[in-house]
Amino acid sequence: VAGTDPTVPPPSKASIFADLSAEELRAVRTFLMGRPELGLSPSHGGPLAKNSIFLVELLAPKKRLALRYLDEGGPAPRRQARAVIFFGGQAEPNVTEYAVGPLPRPSSYRPLRFKGRRAIPFAARPVTLLENELLHRKLVEATEPLYRLLRESTGFWYHNCTERCLTFSDVAPRGLAPGERRSWIILQRFVEGYFLHPVGLEVLIDHRDTDPRRWAVQQVWYNGQYFSSPQELAERYERGQLAKVRLAEHAPRELFSTYVPRGRFATGTPTDVHGAKVCEPPGKRYQLRGNQVEYGGWSLAFRLRSSSGLQLFDVRFNGERLAYELSVQEAVAFYGGHTPAAMQTKYIDAGWGMGSVTYELARGIDCPDGATYLDVHHLYDADGPVRFSRALCIFELPTGVPLRRHFDSNFHGGYQFYAGLEGQALVLRTTSTVYNYDYIWDFLLYPNGVLEAKVHATGFIHATFYTPQGRRYGSRVHTHVLGNMHTHLVHYKVDLDIAGTGNSFETMELRFENISNPWSQGERVVQPWLHRQPRRSERQAAFPFGKALPRYLLFYNPRQRNRWGHPRSYRIQPSSHAGRVLPRGWKEEKGIAWGRYHLAVTRRHENEATSSSLYTQNDPWEPLVNFEGFIRNNESIEDQDLVAWVTVGFLHVPHAEDVPNTATPGNAVGFFLRPFNFFDEDPSVASRSPIIVRPLDPAASQLEIQRWTPDSPGPCVSPGPFTYNGTYWQE
Amino acid sequence: VAGTDPTVPPPSKASIFADLSAEELRAVRTFLMGRPELGLSPSHGGPLAKNSIFLVELLAPKKRLALRYLDEGGPAPRRQARAVIFFGGQAEPNVTEYAVGPLPRPSSYRPLRFKGRRAIPFAARPVTLLENELLHRKLVEATEPLYRLLRESTGFWYHNCTERCLTFSDVAPRGLAPGERRSWIILQRFVEGYFLHPVGLEVLIDHRDTDPRRWAVQQVWYNGQYFSSPQELAERYERGQLAKVRLAEHAPRELFSTYVPRGRFATGTPTDVHGAKVCEPPGKRYQLRGNQVEYGGWSLAFRLRSSSGLQLFDVRFNGERLAYELSVQEAVAFYGGHTPAAMQTKYIDAGWGMGSVTYELARGIDCPDGATYLDVHHLYDADGPVRFSRALCIFELPTGVPLRRHFDSNFHGGYQFYAGLEGQALVLRTTSTVYNYDYIWDFLLYPNGVLEAKVHATGFIHATFYTPQGRRYGSRVHTHVLGNMHTHLVHYKVDLDIAGTGNSFETMELRFENISNPWSQGERVVQPWLHRQPRRSERQAAFPFGKALPRYLLFYNPRQRNRWGHPRSYRIQPSSHAGRVLPRGWKEEKGIAWGRYHLAVTRRHENEATSSSLYTQNDPWEPLVNFEGFIRNNESIEDQDLVAWVTVGFLHVPHAEDVPNTATPGNAVGFFLRPFNFFDEDPSVASRSPIIVRPLDPAASQLEIQRWTPDSPGPCVSPGPFTYNGTYWQE
Ligand SMILES: [Ca+2]
Ligand SMILES: [Ca+2]
Ligand SMILES: [Ca+2]
Ligand SMILES: [Ca+2]
Ligand SMILES: [Cu+2]
Ligand SMILES: [Cu+2]
Repeated sequence: VAGTDPTVPPPSKASIFADLSAEELRAVRTFLMGRPELGLSPSHGGPLAKNSIFLVELLAPKKRLALRYLDEGGPAPRRQARAVIFFGGQAEPNVTEYAVGPLPRPSSYRPLRFKGRRAIPFAARPVTLLENELLHRKLVEATEPLYRLLRESTGFWYHNCTERCLTFSDVAPRGLAPGERRSWIILQRFVEGYFLHPVGLEVLIDHRDTDPRRWAVQQVWYNGQYFSSPQELAERYERGQLAKVRLAEHAPRELFSTYVPRGRFATGTPTDVHGAKVCEPPGKRYQLRGNQVEYGGWSLAFRLRSSSGLQLFDVRFNGERLAYELSVQEAVAFYGGHTPAAMQTKYIDAGWGMGSVTYELARGIDCPDGATYLDVHHLYDADGPVRFSRALCIFELPTGVPLRRHFDSNFHGGYQFYAGLEGQALVLRTTSTVYNYDYIWDFLLYPNGVLEAKVHATGFIHATFYTPQGRRYGSRVHTHVLGNMHTHLVHYKVDLDIAGTGNSFETMELRFENISNPWSQGERVVQPWLHRQPRRSERQAAFPFGKALPRYLLFYNPRQRNRWGHPRSYRIQPSSHAGRVLPRGWKEEKGIAWGRYHLAVTRRHENEATSSSLYTQNDPWEPLVNFEGFIRNNESIEDQDLVAWVTVGFLHVPHAEDVPNTATPGNAVGFFLRPFNFFDEDPSVASRSPIIVRPLDPAASQLEIQRWTPDSPGPCVSPGPFTYNGTYWQE
Repeated sequence: VAGTDPTVPPPSKASIFADLSAEELRAVRTFLMGRPELGLSPSHGGPLAKNSIFLVELLAPKKRLALRYLDEGGPAPRRQARAVIFFGGQAEPNVTEYAVGPLPRPSSYRPLRFKGRRAIPFAARPVTLLENELLHRKLVEATEPLYRLLRESTGFWYHNCTERCLTFSDVAPRGLAPGERRSWIILQRFVEGYFLHPVGLEVLIDHRDTDPRRWAVQQVWYNGQYFSSPQELAERYERGQLAKVRLAEHAPRELFSTYVPRGRFATGTPTDVHGAKVCEPPGKRYQLRGNQVEYGGWSLAFRLRSSSGLQLFDVRFNGERLAYELSVQEAVAFYGGHTPAAMQTKYIDAGWGMGSVTYELARGIDCPDGATYLDVHHLYDADGPVRFSRALCIFELPTGVPLRRHFDSNFHGGYQFYAGLEGQALVLRTTSTVYNYDYIWDFLLYPNGVLEAKVHATGFIHATFYTPQGRRYGSRVHTHVLGNMHTHLVHYKVDLDIAGTGNSFETMELRFENISNPWSQGERVVQPWLHRQPRRSERQAAFPFGKALPRYLLFYNPRQRNRWGHPRSYRIQPSSHAGRVLPRGWKEEKGIAWGRYHLAVTRRHENEATSSSLYTQNDPWEPLVNFEGFIRNNESIEDQDLVAWVTVGFLHVPHAEDVPNTATPGNAVGFFLRPFNFFDEDPSVASRSPIIVRPLDPAASQLEIQRWTPDSPGPCVSPGPFTYNGTYWQE
């Protein structure tokens, strides 16, 4: 089946992990809307004080049932949905999650409980489009007295505006303690790249009540000064009792915050012509069957969770499962700053629909022209499935470096052989544009059994109004703009199943020994040896930031060895510059306890499926999912079903070059999963892509060129068949 | 000049850094050979006890003279050669280095001195082909008594062999103390991939004397046991007094150590067809003029030093110099093991001709098909210039990820704009095949002022004969083969000149502050702030392994600020998993004192041009270049000409998947140079490659697509012009 259309019908097995189709989403919604006891209204429009569906997505099957189906010929697990309902129309507003099934024709639902059966506080829910619209209206009201100030300061205003409009960004968390819901709001000129146009006004609105008439402005900040109300600010402004600021006129479109080219490279090398491209020949080397991908030994199922993003299942190499699940759990950015919005900002992106903001990938820019693009559907803060066209892409990437190569010199102008294997990887990609920021989420599959998870950060920085005191927290990147320092952390769940579910974990580091020299009496040899440390319990396998992480992190089946007698292992190799975002236990830090550890290995439990939730952003102080609880019982992790939880990230101190956008080079973090004595040799020896060149005489005047691919490289490149010489003679 | 032949004649200015041409090399050699007082003989053939030229290469001009030429219209510095001469034919054999000039018609020479005017001990010199040939002859003699043992154990033998031959690898350092020259030699079956075929015999040969008749076998190791001579081993073998080993017959060619494909991927996805390729359209976006490259704002001069590899000079962006020099200094691999050869192995590759073993790059494997390939000439252990065809390549790489992108959602199914800039980088590449190992050396230039230095490790592991005790030091990777643990370290010199030569250096890290909440009385805010630490002296700027490296390492001109008032800075961002290779000060560790530090910043001195030398390998105990001495005088580094010395590397514990060769994924280390408030905004805004899409109506039924490149992506990709939709409506 080489070279055929990579989009053919789904095979049954991976489909148990497939996202809900538009029809399924609709069926779940229709079913729930029809349950009178739920009293549901549409999400859009109407009051906050109503019951409505916030989210519907696949409820992944229990692992036990999935494995019984995948491995033992058992029945397919029942297909179920997870539905999140906001019960705002009740005396005690709350949020409840339900399992709804069976699909495609749901007939029942039952509540899903968090650990400890804690109810979801209503104040912890994400902000909806509706609430956002109500915030906007509140802001119209609040900024009316500030019309003169805004018009004079910025040339823009908020209420009653049609052209020179302000817009806003709200920050989170929304308060200082559980139950609060009051948001600092940053006013910005609504121009292209408005995130870089704060105007110096920030407003704190309490919007806790389900009745927006009871919402109130609690504080106002203008150009470094605090006021108790817009009225107070307006009055003092009129009386000339405060430090005013006047922003420069803005030149439409040709702004610093846009992608419009300006200036010239001094070298004169052209950029107005097309540069190098990824070229995939027509016969693709990967296969896509519904939500299953196959490529050079690899097969896996994937989905794009509306709640939190890419999730791989049943990741196999040559038919053997390596991981049951591999998924993005959470992404956060915790800031520092001098304005109240800046010092309050601790973005926890699953609370902002991180998995659903998967907008269209541009062909040739976000993914190569020849990539396969896939649509997804989300039912997230919507009254039906929403199609996100080209939300995912899959392509083979020429890495630009050989997978492996060797030149076997004879040191006399000739060689025994040259051999090399081209470097390629399959990339599965999506993005999350969480307001200003664009995360690019990649999983890369290499034909040698190496898998790489990688996230690039790009898009706009989160910027606040520049004041001189702001320099302590970042860089001034434009006249009135401070790029605030922050730490990005991303959390991955890696449910490795290395040669089965019964796994153990050990670390390895280099140590030095000082031994007597066996061939020279009286001499000492100091040399490295491999210090192996079996980690027998969860606490022993939790590696906090601030301490060096051992360089070899090995998961293995203690009862299986490779041909050479070593436990069959896979290694996690992070590439990250992460660190703590707050002191341990400090307020919001409790919400992201996973951010304490480079890596934590826990025993897998069905009720510890995710390390975060939709509700952490708006209640990080008493989080519904407390990752520390996964470790606290300090279970044995010997020969158990283990999950590796990996945190990667970096400290981002914005600088002038983050304008207009943060660029990707140097801003990628992630980790590798690498076989370590899992196989008997490099499994990429199965590839037919190598080329071997052997001279047939000492002068290398005749060569044997051995290859298993067609001579001509095909339509992607012009220069005809492979040639090689390899000699290095004196001239 | 867009789209023209990228190889046009050299401009004068970069050419002061160009490697010597074949003619120049020949001229220097002819000149020196003609000096009767030097008494030179050819390198090849003859006795060791002779005087001969070992190396001729460009002697780079003094920085002061080069800058006067480049920046002040001064005269071009005189072009000179560095010549290394082995004086083996004298009563006191020694090595002396000379400056020879002026080129192209040399007329004089003068000795070049190391710091402290230390003479170069003859025993510290690299091993030549001639000495290697003599070692071979000694080994013929030594293995004659072992014929039966070898034939029975392995089916192969050494002396008098024509077909089933053994070969050898010698390890270094060659002894235990200065002045020694005795090498452990590993016998291997001479089959394809012989590095993976140790036969269990290791021999220690003393080859210090210039008269090989005085060379002697000092020790023999066979299958875990030591013997004082081959004769003793042979006798005890005959008498059955030792543990014999019998290797399996080998199946020619279809060996585990070859690139010949075997097995099949279980997925059935094809690999016998061509996969994705890098496609560079005919009109290249880079320019090559002799040894000068220009690309998207960048310009630099390059050379490929025979002694130590790639060296960039005069690295500029938009005409402003960022670095005067950026070069590979040294690469080492220090091993641990149980056999004497393994425990002795501390490879220091500049002593193995690291810069000269730059064999032919295979088109389409080592570099893309459309890359520009360049030949180089080395006169290294040769009697004239040797042409290394296609030793360098240059190409534009599609990175597979956008340089930057943003989707500006309106959260209601539409968007304000989408904008993206394709990701590409120019790659300058060479390789060093140091016997078993292949380093792939890259410098990448991104159009946003980011430069990346990167080295991938591939090729064969250094393997020794497996014994059960060997497991403490690595993995058994085949029946009789142990892959020995080792640490790779690579050292780079980075002579940054950030907005001039007068630079200062500071580090920045996140710290937490606990302040009162300015908008909520009685509450505390704990948040990060930027802790800046000016590093005023060399000791303060030396960051040893074992301590966390601050995450922001900033070089700046203390007298220049960008438009927003920040010191114009560049940042070094390493990506590395390096660690110490030996305890500080232990024997061989003194030779690579640079390997103590992630980063050391020193004041630049013309007599501290390199951190290592050709002579470290064979005398690491009293190295001619002692890097610690660069720091010891603890000079001020405020507003000085600074050099950053960067060490990157990783701990390599070989595993079954290193057979047949170490693969590149996960085995790359390096560093980024990133602008940090150096510019006023991202300089890639000068690129004409972005695409901006703006809906012209709320339904996005009409779009404005703004771009500055031709509509059609050109010959590399088929699917016609760019299209975009961008909406996400409910269905
Ligand atoms: Ca637990
Ligand atoms: Ca597991
Ligand atoms: Ca110094
Ligand atoms: Ca400098
Ligand atoms: Cu950031
Ligand atoms: Cu290695």
